[in-house]
Amino acid sequence: MSKAKKQKSFRPKARKAKGFEDRHGKLLRSENALIKAASDIFDAHGFEPLSTPAFEYADALGKFLPDEERPNAGVFAIEDDDKQWLALRYDHTAPLARFVAQNYDGLAKPFRRFSAGPVWRNEKPGPGRFREFIQVDADTVGTKSPAADAEMIMLAAKVMQGVGLTSDEFTIYINDRRLLDVLLADLGVADTTEGLLQKGIVVRAIDKLDRLGERGVELLLGSGRKDDSGDYTKGAGLTTAAIAKVLAFTRSGHQDRNNTLSAIEKLLGNSELAKQSLNDLNMINDLVTAAGWDENCVFFEPSIVRGLGYYTGPVFEANINLQATDAKGRPMNFGSVGGGGRYDGLVARFKGIEVPATGFSFGVSRFAALMSSLDRLGDQDIAPVVVLALEPDQMASYFTMAEELRADNIRAEVYMGTSGMKAQMKYADKRGAPAVVIVGEDERMAGNITVKNLNLGSKISEQITDNVQWRKANAAQSTDKRSMLVNLVQKTLTP
Amino acid sequence: MSKAKKQKSFRPKARKAKGFEDRHGKLLRSENALIKAASDIFDAHGFEPLSTPAFEYADALGKFLPDEERPNAGVFAIEDDDKQWLALRYDHTAPLARFVAQNYDGLAKPFRRFSAGPVWRNEKPGPGRFREFIQVDADTVGTKSPAADAEMIMLAAKVMQGVGLTSDEFTIYINDRRLLDVLLADLGVADTTEGLLQKGIVVRAIDKLDRLGERGVELLLGSGRKDDSGDYTKGAGLTTAAIAKVLAFTRSGHQDRNNTLSAIEKLLGNSELAKQSLNDLNMINDLVTAAGWDENCVFFEPSIVRGLGYYTGPVFEANINLQATDAKGRPMNFGSVGGGGRYDGLVARFKGIEVPATGFSFGVSRFAALMSSLDRLGDQDIAPVVVLALEPDQMASYFTMAEELRADNIRAEVYMGTSGMKAQMKYADKRGAPAVVIVGEDERMAGNITVKNLNLGSKISEQITDNVQWRKANAAQSTDKRSMLVNLVQKTLTP
Repeated sequence: MSKAKKQKSFRPKARKAKGFEDRHGKLLRSENALIKAASDIFDAHGFEPLSTPAFEYADALGKFLPDEERPNAGVFAIEDDDKQWLALRYDHTAPLARFVAQNYDGLAKPFRRFSAGPVWRNEKPGPGRFREFIQVDADTVGTKSPAADAEMIMLAAKVMQGVGLTSDEFTIYINDRRLLDVLLADLGVADTTEGLLQKGIVVRAIDKLDRLGERGVELLLGSGRKDDSGDYTKGAGLTTAAIAKVLAFTRSGHQDRNNTLSAIEKLLGNSELAKQSLNDLNMINDLVTAAGWDENCVFFEPSIVRGLGYYTGPVFEANINLQATDAKGRPMNFGSVGGGGRYDGLVARFKGIEVPATGFSFGVSRFAALMSSLDRLGDQDIAPVVVLALEPDQMASYFTMAEELRADNIRAEVYMGTSGMKAQMKYADKRGAPAVVIVGEDERMAGNITVKNLNLGSKISEQITDNVQWRKANAAQSTDKRSMLVNLVQKTLTP
Repeated sequence: MSKAKKQKSFRPKARKAKGFEDRHGKLLRSENALIKAASDIFDAHGFEPLSTPAFEYADALGKFLPDEERPNAGVFAIEDDDKQWLALRYDHTAPLARFVAQNYDGLAKPFRRFSAGPVWRNEKPGPGRFREFIQVDADTVGTKSPAADAEMIMLAAKVMQGVGLTSDEFTIYINDRRLLDVLLADLGVADTTEGLLQKGIVVRAIDKLDRLGERGVELLLGSGRKDDSGDYTKGAGLTTAAIAKVLAFTRSGHQDRNNTLSAIEKLLGNSELAKQSLNDLNMINDLVTAAGWDENCVFFEPSIVRGLGYYTGPVFEANINLQATDAKGRPMNFGSVGGGGRYDGLVARFKGIEVPATGFSFGVSRFAALMSSLDRLGDQDIAPVVVLALEPDQMASYFTMAEELRADNIRAEVYMGTSGMKAQMKYADKRGAPAVVIVGEDERMAGNITVKNLNLGSKISEQITDNVQWRKANAAQSTDKRSMLVNLVQKTLTP
């Protein structure tokens, strides 16, 4: 009584929280297929599965939020009973750094792990921008060797292949943070507050090459740029010679990998840092080349700027080179589906000693949505065969039929409601069931079963009012002995 | 520079948040195997995967927290920018009710879905009690048919079998909330505030039958009970006749299913509610019996009390009947690994119309930990073969070797660090690698490879200081032509 009263006095509105999404059907199956493909590949390479908690202490997460440009970017944080602040992880890397630091002595090093699961960003939601999304990461902690970076690059390429992309349908871009640092130092950008501001403008300008073209970037590197809406973006104020050098740098990518490295060496080769970087990139190139990855799908691209502030060496990005449209037929901007790089300072935050590391992270939610929109993933979303429940006292026999189908690897279910045949057929239609099994009193008395192919006869069901009319109207069904159930369904499902 | 300074001024302690756990290795593999087994079974039965967000609006989640006894039980809640309260889900059922209410017209009904993922409880953590754990659920929404309850019971049993338990190693208990209500009404427990308090004491007493035995429960139903520590628990104050009836009720379970139902009918059969309940339980019994589930692993148990306040009809519980010890050799209390039941009122909170539903939920974290402790799950935790990296300029050839092993479905990795042979052998030992592939300069010049079986020769590595001594000391290794790599590793791995 008191419960019923409570329900009357307050009825909440059924709405999902703003910026979050329910995932199901083909999209969720795409995500799961992607996670499985990536996990299997990482596992085969000896990476260990690791699942850290959703919450970390806020001080352990640190301020390594991506996209430093957006000051609103934040975390979901809660003050615990003991006055310590807990925050939901915004990626899998910061919790990994905490895990490694906490368990350092017990771990076999290099420590290689993979993680898959949701991460949360307390941001203003927008179209296609959610506050919860899935990432799957692989990381190698405890080695400076560029072989570990090369492995990350090849793992990323293998995952792209693993979900069915051919080598001309994806690209892994490689760059190195140190090259940018050398370039900027060469241009006289100092490590002062003002210099860092200028550096930021240059880096963001390079990042926009894809969108604005060379002329737009040139303006941003120089005096500034007014966009189509009239908004003005302040420029970096570089000299004409400096601008030419930046553009030459960005132009050196997207070609034979050896040629790119030679061009970069000519541009920046004098400093110690440039030499270190080029040494590492050459070793990466050797390993990637020896493993047979061609120049079209893995190449050096100096215009690639990964947002995260913690990268210290090689950086990577995975892109899909395909066109697609969303559910409403609008073209979808594909671009990057993952990225990574070397971050030698992250564990040092805790340990005080440098623990070099490198990793790669796929944005599963985005990647899977793109693949799903292309019908390239999630195709295992096949609706079950529905066994109609026409006689309430015959449920046990319907259960047996569904079980026989499952034993033959056919997805099957018994209609679980209490409605009549027409509603049951509508249910099967709405589910997209490929076939229904019909055993009414007549069939049962005769020891028969009827299987109707809904792929053939769909929509007919709407005109049906009784069992007899049904049978007359519809050629897409066949009847056989009860013992032939599995056989008949198999025949119906085979195109 | 500025970064290094910042790190000096503040170094956070690397510690995981209180009440949360890092999962990895065998335990995490157990969880994943369990989720996969359950998901595959639900999927084969036509249930659709659904993933709702971690956050719901707090008013949508409602106050259906389990374990009503503990007033401290709570959720993790955050106030959003727009002043609405978000809360992390504490189970998968409350979000399902919101999802169904929000998408009601578009769903084919009965709507059957499964979900797997973490849930959060903002509770005081204790031994084995975490604030984040994984649940996997299946639910059928939109039917009153007891066939849907029977399906849940059999799905639960199939999942138990699916993870490798035999029918004498697990039990699915069935009870019905309505029977308890009838019993208590018969005993004169009124629906007043005082009566509900008394009802609570009776229900909790029945729930403790397993732990306290009949004598203990008798005391709790009567005047009260003092436990071994001297703490006194107030009793329900029932009369001797009433106590006898409650005990007769609890005694009617755990036997031939038909006998239990007859005994209950004799005890409670006069009221309309008892008849409805027994009708449903008889139909469940018929379906479970027809499907061949024997009396030992699926039976009616009137002493089963599931905690959740929202159950309205049949309730279920899955138990493991095995002994195990934890990592420290202490006996583990197995008990329940999952439960469920019918909840016809949950969607009505939003819709105002009754949407009957039934479901089952496995506590994956607990279930998997038990199975893992028995070495019954997670046995796919096999460490990779390690290809040693002995000559820095030969990394490409080590990568090729590991790739050849993987192509033959052998988990393999190249040592990614920069240390010498001794450290590499220690690494392989620490990882638990079954074998290492050794190609130093000698082998390479001779076109050979050496494979060492670490399962045989483990620990020897610690005494080794150079390559020559190694080869002498150790019989558990063999050398062959480079082309025989996969063959030789296969031979080494085969017991």
